[in-house]
Amino acid sequence: MIDRKSLQSILNDEIPITLAMGIGVEQLTDSSILLAAPLSNNINHKSTVFGGSLYSVAVLTGWGMIYAKLDSLSLHAHIVIHESSIQYLKPVNQDFMASCEITDHADFDKKISIYKRKGISRITLVVEIKNSDQLAVKFTGQYVIHN
Amino acid sequence: MIDRKSLQSILNDEIPITLAMGIGVEQLTDSSILLAAPLSNNINHKSTVFGGSLYSVAVLTGWGMIYAKLDSLSLHAHIVIHESSIQYLKPVNQDFMASCEITDHADFDKKISIYKRKGISRITLVVEIKNSDQLAVKFTGQYVIHN
Repeated sequence: MIDRKSLQSILNDEIPITLAMGIGVEQLTDSSILLAAPLSNNINHKSTVFGGSLYSVAVLTGWGMIYAKLDSLSLHAHIVIHESSIQYLKPVNQDFMASCEITDHADFDKKISIYKRKGISRITLVVEIKNSDQLAVKFTGQYVIHN
Repeated sequence: MIDRKSLQSILNDEIPITLAMGIGVEQLTDSSILLAAPLSNNINHKSTVFGGSLYSVAVLTGWGMIYAKLDSLSLHAHIVIHESSIQYLKPVNQDFMASCEITDHADFDKKISIYKRKGISRITLVVEIKNSDQLAVKFTGQYVIHN
């Protein structure tokens, strides 16, 4: 399976704005991922993280989770975000991490079966960002994987 | 009322990542706004605009609309994004603009009255991004204005 440094290279090489945001891949397994970014690159006028940067890190966390999981299955689909929603529950006033975990493996396997059969499938993932151990951002993204 | 160059300076000075994204204010009235950004700064691996950049421009378009409208009323509230949703209907493969318009003035006035009375109010705005005259992105953001 792809390791965290290789996934980080993919993100930074293919989406250059992720370099300006300082986005890195902190941890990666085939069912969990942590992306990190600093406050300084993404600061706003309230000395907290800009909501657009929180969204960008969240959407890439879900994207990276699917990429890593598919890679572990030797599948190389296109992965695109189709629609999403985000709730800002608390401000983030420090360097931060976004986490995503595949918990319902049976459901994920079903989505993969659909992709294998039809060449297209939809996967919904939740990404969380905490600030000092409190949930600060909840992102729900529906991704499409296709041939 | 604030002019487009002053609003652009506020965005670029207070949220530095907007400079890396190349975000500018193209047009501004007290009931409509256009923000622009180039493909090059925000490109992804498919040579289209990164979904996080589309979101960032959209969320700032709504924010700028409220800022300009409040400024025209000599009100200087804090404006924060509370929750939002975004639909990616088509890819954006060129320099792009995001537009927002206040169409329901009676509703907006009511929200302002609530803010004046209670010190806090919620305003929901829709932002659209087109690609070659076709709707490509629809963003709906709920902002909180407060003392």
